[in-house]
Amino acid sequence: MLPIAVDAMGGDNAPGEIVAGARQAAEAGTPVILVGRPDAIGDPGPCQVLEASEVIEMHDDPAQGVRRKKDSSLVRAAEAVRDGRAGAMVSAGNTGATMGSALLRMGRIKGVSRPAIATPIPVPGALPTVLLDAGANAECQASWLVQFAQMGTVFARERFGIERPRVGLLSIGEEPTKGTALEKETHQLLREAKGVDFVGNVEGRDIMTPDLDVVVTDGFTGNVVLKTLEGGMRTLINALFGVFASSDEAKAAADVLMPALLPLYDQLDPDTYGGAVLLGVDGVCIISHGSSSAKALVNAIGVAREMVESDLVGLMRAAVAGEPSQAHK
Amino acid sequence: MLPIAVDAMGGDNAPGEIVAGARQAAEAGTPVILVGRPDAIGDPGPCQVLEASEVIEMHDDPAQGVRRKKDSSLVRAAEAVRDGRAGAMVSAGNTGATMGSALLRMGRIKGVSRPAIATPIPVPGALPTVLLDAGANAECQASWLVQFAQMGTVFARERFGIERPRVGLLSIGEEPTKGTALEKETHQLLREAKGVDFVGNVEGRDIMTPDLDVVVTDGFTGNVVLKTLEGGMRTLINALFGVFASSDEAKAAADVLMPALLPLYDQLDPDTYGGAVLLGVDGVCIISHGSSSAKALVNAIGVAREMVESDLVGLMRAAVAGEPSQAHK
Repeated sequence: MLPIAVDAMGGDNAPGEIVAGARQAAEAGTPVILVGRPDAIGDPGPCQVLEASEVIEMHDDPAQGVRRKKDSSLVRAAEAVRDGRAGAMVSAGNTGATMGSALLRMGRIKGVSRPAIATPIPVPGALPTVLLDAGANAECQASWLVQFAQMGTVFARERFGIERPRVGLLSIGEEPTKGTALEKETHQLLREAKGVDFVGNVEGRDIMTPDLDVVVTDGFTGNVVLKTLEGGMRTLINALFGVFASSDEAKAAADVLMPALLPLYDQLDPDTYGGAVLLGVDGVCIISHGSSSAKALVNAIGVAREMVESDLVGLMRAAVAGEPSQAHK
Repeated sequence: MLPIAVDAMGGDNAPGEIVAGARQAAEAGTPVILVGRPDAIGDPGPCQVLEASEVIEMHDDPAQGVRRKKDSSLVRAAEAVRDGRAGAMVSAGNTGATMGSALLRMGRIKGVSRPAIATPIPVPGALPTVLLDAGANAECQASWLVQFAQMGTVFARERFGIERPRVGLLSIGEEPTKGTALEKETHQLLREAKGVDFVGNVEGRDIMTPDLDVVVTDGFTGNVVLKTLEGGMRTLINALFGVFASSDEAKAAADVLMPALLPLYDQLDPDTYGGAVLLGVDGVCIISHGSSSAKALVNAIGVAREMVESDLVGLMRAAVAGEPSQAHK
């Protein structure tokens, strides 16, 4: 199989954790190309290295960064996919620049109006809910949201093995008349959309429940939802840790609970699912969390490999063309 | 002081919990009028009763309900405020119909473009963050959001004693260029807005932190945020209870932690803050959570009284007129 191109320079913990994760994945049998400055990468272990002299930093303007830094690790990783030297790209760096590099170098899948970021939202004790668009398009048209529903359906099926993913449209009430003009129009279109098991409008409180598999919304609302949940969960978990450390008795009690709490903590950890996927570009592009650890990278590379092996791009092309959806292989 | 008009018929636990809460508040010294069917209210204790023969149900269309059910408890409660027989209204019923009754019977404050729902979002160990608009206006204009910032500032000051509330505009990045056309325009207007300590764009992850006092957004995004947090917190708390009940050892450990966990649980309970306030109407209108308990009602009546005593309506009028903001009394 083609190797996975990993942006060695992107992310809060780059290159250390990124290289460590890439090496682990390669040692476990997935071929990896580390893209970046060889001196920063250090010992690549069993990974190949693709030299790139520039870095698009987290604070760089995404569009300018992609245009000006033609020898950046992100742009070179996207080119490796375009040129058939890599099967997929993975980055924990600047999200906007990752999207920009993928879009400019790989291009869109024919028929896709706009790519969308699909992010798995953890649901304790159940499969995650796929949220899209989680931030690629701040302003959307109804027809784009219909494609997001089609692409999200394929992604939920291939990534999580859900045969008939239930798709909800995020709104502020279950009635088709609730929401803005965008939700009202999208609701009507989704009722007729091919390849989508549309369950109707859903509300924010439905996202982290087992009752839904895919939630479709515009990129502004999706990004706000994602970050609101991240912030809310972090606040609550920090408050819990505060309680656990509040006395010697509490510490001892927390120690007893820890073996049962850790699986829950792991499920809520954004590193667990390896990040988001940019759907609709003509290649597999995984966007990992900026704070990705080596573990997150191992998971992201695993997702990339899985998506290449299941021919995600071909399935997306068929889905937006309205071809009959295939069952999970 | 004028009594607080309480919609006895509104809410999932009406009239039982509503009447119980109203009686408790009245027994503690706040005059209350219970509005509804006397046979359903039963023994009003020290409360007055204002008869209303109809009920706008939770599933009723709000606009139709308000128009057609002229003798409903909600409409009669709003009229009591308009006619000077009550100082404020409180309802745990149909949110849309509560807004509609208040707007149609009390009217808007002169100069206010649109009323907004202000909801306190709990922040463990700190004062809550006031989120508005939490659902009154699905689609907004930039100038309305500026008024929400002005009204939210006054509300945070009067309700929580924050002298200079820090106001953020909810967006998908800190840069003024992030977000949709609405956020970009609102950002520029807020930089010049009178009576607003604007700290810039904020993201979803900032809402449940002590770094902010007021978050301004359109009613669609605000409602999605509110319900997403409610759902996420409930999911996480349920998962924790699952862990606590997972074995005899875990149960014993959870019992040890309970005294330290309960204050946290209380802080996150929507009942604690007594509900949301509809800002911009010419009277005090408290919108309690549909699942309100007697405790929630006691708190809501307390908030209503406080807001009447601090002349919330007069302060709102001054704020949107751009008059110099007053310090907390």
